[in-house]
Amino acid sequence: MEVLTPKNSKGKRAKPVASSSAIERGDKAPHEHNTSLEDFVQFRSRLNVEILNEGNLVINRFFALDTRTYEAGKLDVKTKELLGLVASLVLRCDDCVTYHLTRCAEERVTRPEIFECLSVGLVVGGSIVIPHLRRAVERWSSLERVAR
Amino acid sequence: MEVLTPKNSKGKRAKPVASSSAIERGDKAPHEHNTSLEDFVQFRSRLNVEILNEGNLVINRFFALDTRTYEAGKLDVKTKELLGLVASLVLRCDDCVTYHLTRCAEERVTRPEIFECLSVGLVVGGSIVIPHLRRAVERWSSLERVAR
Amino acid sequence: MEVLTPKNSKGKRAKPVASSSAIERGDKAPHEHNTSLEDFVQFRSRLNVEILNEGNLVINRFFALDTRTYEAGKLDVKTKELLGLVASLVLRCDDCVTYHLTRCAEERVTRPEIFECLSVGLVVGGSIVIPHLRRAVERWSSLERVAR
Amino acid sequence: MEVLTPKNSKGKRAKPVASSSAIERGDKAPHEHNTSLEDFVQFRSRLNVEILNEGNLVINRFFALDTRTYEAGKLDVKTKELLGLVASLVLRCDDCVTYHLTRCAEERVTRPEIFECLSVGLVVGGSIVIPHLRRAVERWSSLERVAR
Amino acid sequence: MEVLTPKNSKGKRAKPVASSSAIERGDKAPHEHNTSLEDFVQFRSRLNVEILNEGNLVINRFFALDTRTYEAGKLDVKTKELLGLVASLVLRCDDCVTYHLTRCAEERVTRPEIFECLSVGLVVGGSIVIPHLRRAVERWSSLERVAR
Amino acid sequence: MEVLTPKNSKGKRAKPVASSSAIERGDKAPHEHNTSLEDFVQFRSRLNVEILNEGNLVINRFFALDTRTYEAGKLDVKTKELLGLVASLVLRCDDCVTYHLTRCAEERVTRPEIFECLSVGLVVGGSIVIPHLRRAVERWSSLERVAR
Repeated sequence: MEVLTPKNSKGKRAKPVASSSAIERGDKAPHEHNTSLEDFVQFRSRLNVEILNEGNLVINRFFALDTRTYEAGKLDVKTKELLGLVASLVLRCDDCVTYHLTRCAEERVTRPEIFECLSVGLVVGGSIVIPHLRRAVERWSSLERVAR
Repeated sequence: MEVLTPKNSKGKRAKPVASSSAIERGDKAPHEHNTSLEDFVQFRSRLNVEILNEGNLVINRFFALDTRTYEAGKLDVKTKELLGLVASLVLRCDDCVTYHLTRCAEERVTRPEIFECLSVGLVVGGSIVIPHLRRAVERWSSLERVAR
Repeated sequence: MEVLTPKNSKGKRAKPVASSSAIERGDKAPHEHNTSLEDFVQFRSRLNVEILNEGNLVINRFFALDTRTYEAGKLDVKTKELLGLVASLVLRCDDCVTYHLTRCAEERVTRPEIFECLSVGLVVGGSIVIPHLRRAVERWSSLERVAR
Repeated sequence: MEVLTPKNSKGKRAKPVASSSAIERGDKAPHEHNTSLEDFVQFRSRLNVEILNEGNLVINRFFALDTRTYEAGKLDVKTKELLGLVASLVLRCDDCVTYHLTRCAEERVTRPEIFECLSVGLVVGGSIVIPHLRRAVERWSSLERVAR
Repeated sequence: MEVLTPKNSKGKRAKPVASSSAIERGDKAPHEHNTSLEDFVQFRSRLNVEILNEGNLVINRFFALDTRTYEAGKLDVKTKELLGLVASLVLRCDDCVTYHLTRCAEERVTRPEIFECLSVGLVVGGSIVIPHLRRAVERWSSLERVAR
Repeated sequence: MEVLTPKNSKGKRAKPVASSSAIERGDKAPHEHNTSLEDFVQFRSRLNVEILNEGNLVINRFFALDTRTYEAGKLDVKTKELLGLVASLVLRCDDCVTYHLTRCAEERVTRPEIFECLSVGLVVGGSIVIPHLRRAVERWSSLERVAR
C-alpha cells in the first residue's frame, strides 16, 4: 500500500512527527473529514508505516492485497476506483471515500461522473448515506480547487 | 421498475399464480438463492405489482427512481450495473446481487470482468462476503448455461 | 419472551417435535420467509425454549429485557411495535420483520399504516431494503388473509 | 429538503461562507457531533445547496422524496419522526440522529418519549449503539437548554 | 482454504455432483441454515473449487489469507475460532457462524463456552442477532448429536 | 457499567464540567478518536451518569447487562475482552474499540496478541475496517506509552 500523496500537499511529504511529544502524538488521531486532507494523508501514512513495521503477516498481506485489487486487469483502473468509491459510500466509511475520491481525481474522473457514481450509492444505501454524500462532495470540491 | 425477464426463462413469462390457494401463496415466499432463478423472477414480479398497486406515493416514487438510477448518463449502463453489483455484494444482499448479475449478463459483461468486480467487493467487504460470493458465482454460471 | 402465537395457527399451539428424529430435527432449521408462518412460529418457540433452558444468565436477561422493551410506557404499544418494525427493516432482518408484523396485526395496525412505516424504512435504508420489503408485504397479506 | 433552522440559531440564518478562503472552506467539513449544532446546521445547509445545484436528477429526486417521507399521512408527523430517529440510531448515523432529534423537538416530543424511542434502538441494535446513544442524549439536552 | 469435513459427514467426502443436470445444479444453491449441514458442506466445497479454478489472483490470495488467519500464533486456535464466531454473529452471517461452530467443535470448545461467546455477540449486536442465535444453537446441538 | 478510569488519567478523576457554560457544554460532544483519551473518558463518564439518572428501566438494565457480559465465566475476562474488541472492530465502532483496548491493557494483553485479534477483524470485515484499524493501533500505542 503505497503512501498516498495527493496533489494538494504542496510537494511536502508527510514529515516524521518526532517533534511532537509522545502524549500529544498518541492522544490525537485525526478523525475522517473533521480534519484537513493534508492531516488525513499524514496520519494515514504514519500509521500505515507503524502497522506494517509490526510484522503481523496476515495484516501485511491484506494491505498488499488491497493495493493489488485496484490495479488494471479486465476492468481498467478508473472503473475499479469507481467500484471502490461506491462500495465505500454504501458502507459509509468517510476515510475510504476520501481515499477513492483522491484516486479518482488522479485518474481524471469528471465531476458529473463522480456525482453519477455517488447517486448509485445514494439510491442503494438510502438517506442514511446523505451525511457521507455531503462530506464526499465537500472533499471533491476541495480536490478540484487544489487541481486548478 | 420493469419486470425482469432473464433469458433463461425459456420464453415463458411468469404466469399468474391464481391456481395456488391463498394460504399456500401467502405462506411461502421464495428466499434468495434457495430457489430457482425462475421462481425468484416470478416472486419478484408478483410482489412488485402488489406493492405498486397499493398506491403509496413514497414507495412508488422510490421504485421509479431506482429504475432511473441505472440508465445511461455520464457513465454507461454496463459501468452502472457493475456499481450496483459491487454495492449489493458488500451490503450482502443475495437478491440484489442476482438482479444485477442478470442485468450484467444482458449487457454482455464477461466472466473475468464479473470476477474482478466481485474481487473488489470481497476485499472491501471481507470474508463475511464469501458465502454471498459463492452464491453469486453459482448464479452467474447458471446464467451462462442458459445463455448458451 | 413469551411464545408468539399468531391468529393463523388454527388454535393449535406449536407441538413438541418429539416425533421427528434427532438427525432431522437438528439438520433443518427453517430460514426466514422461505417457510410458512406456522413453521417459523414453531421453530422460534422450540429454540427459545432450548436457549432459555441452557441457563446462560446474560442471554436469559437479554430475552427478558427484549420483551419488556415493547411494553406500554410513555409511548403506546402500537407506536413501539412500529419502531421495532422500521428498525428491523432497515437492519434487514426478515425474521424480526415477521415478528413485528405479527404483533402489529394483533395491535390492529392498518395496511396503509404498515405501508407508511415500510416507506420510511425504504427511504432510510435504500434499495437494498427492497427484497425485504417484498417479503414483508407478502407476510402482511398472508396475515390479513388469516385474520379474515 | 428544506433548510433546517433549529431554535437555537439565534435567528441567524446560516450565512454564506464567502469570507473564508477557498482552501479553508474545502478542507474542513464539520463531522457529526464533534461540532456545535450551529456549525452542523450551517455545513448541512451549504452542502445541500451545492449538491442540489449540481443538477443530478437522481440525487435531486431522492432529496425531494426524503422530505416527503416524513409528511403527515396515515401516520402523523411525530410518529414518523420517531421512526426516522430509531432507524437512524440502529444504523448508527450521528448526523441523522441529530436531524431527527431537532425535528422531534419542533414536534414537541417529550424527554421521556425520546428516551423510550432510544431504548428501542438500544435493544434492537445492541451495545454498539451506546456511543451514539450518549451523543444523542447530549444533543437532546442541548436542544432542551436552547428551547428554555 | 481447505475443504471443511465436519464429523457428521459419515466419512463420505462431498461427491462431485456430476449426476445432477446442469440446469438443476445451477438453479439451486443451498441457502444457509435452510439446508442440512451435509448439503451446506457439499455446496461450499463445490463452489470453492469453482471459484479457485477461475484463477482470479485477488480472490485466490484472499482465500489463502482467510485460512492463514485462524492458524495458531500468539493466540491459540481455539481463541481465534471464538473470535471468528463472535465476529460472524454480530455481522449476522449464518454460513460463517456454521463454519466457525464446526471448527469450534473440532477444537473441543464446550457448550457453555459457546453460549458465553454467543452471549457477547448478542449484547454487542442486539436483538437483531436473535434469529441468528437461534440458528446457531440449532446447529451446535446438531453438531453435538453427530459427535456422540 | 462502572466508570472507566484508565491508567493514563494521571490520577485525576473526570471533574464536573460546571465551569463551562451550558451552551458550550451541550454543543460539543467529543467524537471518537478525534479527541484525547482523557476527554473521551470524561465525556463517557458524564453522559453515562446523565443517562442512568433519567431512570429509563430498559436502558438502565441494558447498561447493567453490558457490564455483566464481560465478567469471568466459562471464558476468562481476557478472552471476553478480545471477543468484545473484535466484535467492535468489525462493526466499526471507534469508541467501542477504544473501550475494549483500554480494558485489554488492564488485563495485560500483549501487543502481538492485540495485533492478532485485529488481524481477525480485518480479514472478516475487509478493507473498510482499515481506518478503524489505524485508529485502534494509535490508541494502543498511546496506552502503551502511558503504561510505561
